[in-house]
Amino acid sequence: MSSPAALFTDRYELTMLQAALRSGAAHRRCTFEVFARRLPAGRRYGVVAGTGRLLDELTDFRFGDAELAVLARDSVVDAETLRWLEGFRFTGNIWGYAEGDVYLPDSPVLTVEGSFAEAVLLETLVLSVLNHDSAVAAAAARMVGAAAGRPCLEMGSRRTHEEAAVAAARAAYLVGFAGTSNLAAGARYGVPTIGTAAHAFTLLHDSEEAAFAAQVASLGRSTTLLVDTYDVALGVETAVKVAGPELGAVRLDSGDLLEQAQAVRAQLDALGNPATKIVVTSDLDEFAIAALAAAPVDSYGVGTSLVTGSGAPTAGMVYKLVEREDASGELRPVAKRSDGKVGHGGRKGAWRRHDESGAAVEELLAVGPFEPRGTDRPLQGPLVEGGSVLERPTLAESRARHETAVAALPASARQLSRGEPAIPTTFLPEG
Amino acid sequence: MSSPAALFTDRYELTMLQAALRSGAAHRRCTFEVFARRLPAGRRYGVVAGTGRLLDELTDFRFGDAELAVLARDSVVDAETLRWLEGFRFTGNIWGYAEGDVYLPDSPVLTVEGSFAEAVLLETLVLSVLNHDSAVAAAAARMVGAAAGRPCLEMGSRRTHEEAAVAAARAAYLVGFAGTSNLAAGARYGVPTIGTAAHAFTLLHDSEEAAFAAQVASLGRSTTLLVDTYDVALGVETAVKVAGPELGAVRLDSGDLLEQAQAVRAQLDALGNPATKIVVTSDLDEFAIAALAAAPVDSYGVGTSLVTGSGAPTAGMVYKLVEREDASGELRPVAKRSDGKVGHGGRKGAWRRHDESGAAVEELLAVGPFEPRGTDRPLQGPLVEGGSVLERPTLAESRARHETAVAALPASARQLSRGEPAIPTTFLPEG
Repeated sequence: MSSPAALFTDRYELTMLQAALRSGAAHRRCTFEVFARRLPAGRRYGVVAGTGRLLDELTDFRFGDAELAVLARDSVVDAETLRWLEGFRFTGNIWGYAEGDVYLPDSPVLTVEGSFAEAVLLETLVLSVLNHDSAVAAAAARMVGAAAGRPCLEMGSRRTHEEAAVAAARAAYLVGFAGTSNLAAGARYGVPTIGTAAHAFTLLHDSEEAAFAAQVASLGRSTTLLVDTYDVALGVETAVKVAGPELGAVRLDSGDLLEQAQAVRAQLDALGNPATKIVVTSDLDEFAIAALAAAPVDSYGVGTSLVTGSGAPTAGMVYKLVEREDASGELRPVAKRSDGKVGHGGRKGAWRRHDESGAAVEELLAVGPFEPRGTDRPLQGPLVEGGSVLERPTLAESRARHETAVAALPASARQLSRGEPAIPTTFLPEG
Repeated sequence: MSSPAALFTDRYELTMLQAALRSGAAHRRCTFEVFARRLPAGRRYGVVAGTGRLLDELTDFRFGDAELAVLARDSVVDAETLRWLEGFRFTGNIWGYAEGDVYLPDSPVLTVEGSFAEAVLLETLVLSVLNHDSAVAAAAARMVGAAAGRPCLEMGSRRTHEEAAVAAARAAYLVGFAGTSNLAAGARYGVPTIGTAAHAFTLLHDSEEAAFAAQVASLGRSTTLLVDTYDVALGVETAVKVAGPELGAVRLDSGDLLEQAQAVRAQLDALGNPATKIVVTSDLDEFAIAALAAAPVDSYGVGTSLVTGSGAPTAGMVYKLVEREDASGELRPVAKRSDGKVGHGGRKGAWRRHDESGAAVEELLAVGPFEPRGTDRPLQGPLVEGGSVLERPTLAESRARHETAVAALPASARQLSRGEPAIPTTFLPEG
């Protein structure tokens, strides 16, 4: 069952719309900004992900007859508001950080301009998409860094909601994962898909040898055989016996991976299979991957910790009104002022300052005029103009953007230990 | 964009299918069981959730022309397998714990019977749905317990994937939440929806008073006014001035909620508004809710910690082959035997044993014959017969089932502190 994007919305967006239509304030021009007040505890940087998915969904963000009927049935809004929703399409502008780019605390990763009525309606969808995908991407980026060039493979679909799994596979690929087990991510986004067999396949057959023979007969000698259903050493011996020196890889999915990888590598080499690779897949996260750096492992399959953001399952971004038209037609900065969550009013431009060597040193956010230096990279670009989604980068281009952005961060950004954001965020002018 | 359920599948399910079609083992009768090896660290019980969603998706689990074209394009499987998939529909049987029931380590929450070919294909979807929804339900159940009768409201859509948000709202309602902000959950599952206004609505208007007046004019005096945009005491004063003694509620979304709730209650009472309620909503989890037990709070809005499972974002269930036909046509128990993840072979029946007072004392899992006592409640019931989804409980009936199941657990189950599972799981006969 699926819903049109317009129902992925909190009820209060619609009740605010109704009250604002009545007060007349619904038509005031507004600017909303999306940002994270802080990174997850100890993380050095965030990764913008989901923009492409969001723009896909924005195109379908309409209230059709079925949706209007439900809103009427449940008395969510009054008849006047239903009439307004009937004709709704977003006609404003959206600016944002490039998908795949790095962000820091307070970075305005998305800026939405439009009437209050049309901009407020997008809040829930915008945050759902960006918070989920960015959380996965940030965790995945740490894993890619820890793997230091060895391929990482996304295998977490079974540990998260079935649609979230597709988005997670896309986000992981965005930051450098080599592939995913998720077929929908292959179909929808062209992410390369991977996978050969599980323990059930071995258990299904009368012996491990029969299972391996069946797999090789069907998938070829370059397949990956899962060797830990019974006894790993016997499994490896059988795998080589069945597939010979051309066996593509063996997979280890349990036990002490470091110790096993060393033993299996030695065994494979002794059996005449130096080209056969070793894939490991048991409950890995960025720390386990780093701990295997010295092990003879060729690739990492990551599941649970990838799709759950490795301890930080949501990016915690918020969607805040930062300026709105007043009675005289002027745009005025606004911000919440009570305890706890004080905001920075006004629309913010964003640049990343670099030193002469090209290393990022500071995230600069400016309300009002700012004269960038040559090494200040502007971080926002236009995504939607007058309601029309502009041409956007391919996933391959966004992968490249991500790699460049992370490479420019100081070395501390790639440390897995807890610490401060890789570069500081500065508001200009102060105040 | 949405996919048919059949693509919410790991690639290796299809490559195993191909290899098993070739070896002939694909047609062996099999039984797969879904269970969690353990509960999340320190949790006392799990909650089965997602069954209803799973059965909805199972009905659509087919490979249509578009899916087959993608599988062919990406060379996922060979032509023979594509032909087999063309005619695929699940024709087996599924048994399971009732949705809303409690589960414990090793409880067989779902049992799938069919040929290897058709049962293996369901693995990824089954686990995605149950792992996500059960994780949310388990966290939500702790919150409902901590709230001790005060209504809990689900407001976490913006912190998770947009489709996961709908499922999370359903799972929270299943275990006793009173409503959700998510409109799609209202439309799709009839979950009551709630919500009035955010800080942006106040900031949009020229003054807090103008905003409150606009909201009351449109939504009535029984609405909930958000009073912490500027100064809480002034906000409450203005709210009462605008809405009078019939004001429904005020909402607090920042600061020290315990202190503020006490001050606001006193102020409301002094202003002649003893019937005006107080809703609190700032980053609550089950521990924060418990800490507010003595505060004059009327309801709790929960976001992030609900949709992320409050520290346990996935239930960690697995889908394991426990028996399969051998060459002679006999069903034989099977289980993985290597280090780390040793399994219990054989199809397991499940009963919850109760003492004379009706309190649950033990989860009994039996391979083979078992003579239940009168106080042993059978835990599995038929869900799918010969591929046809059977009639199933309404969400209201599942809510009642959940309440009964939790009420039967010992008091330790409702403690929020870390501890052992509420009742032990016993395998009969041992071995």
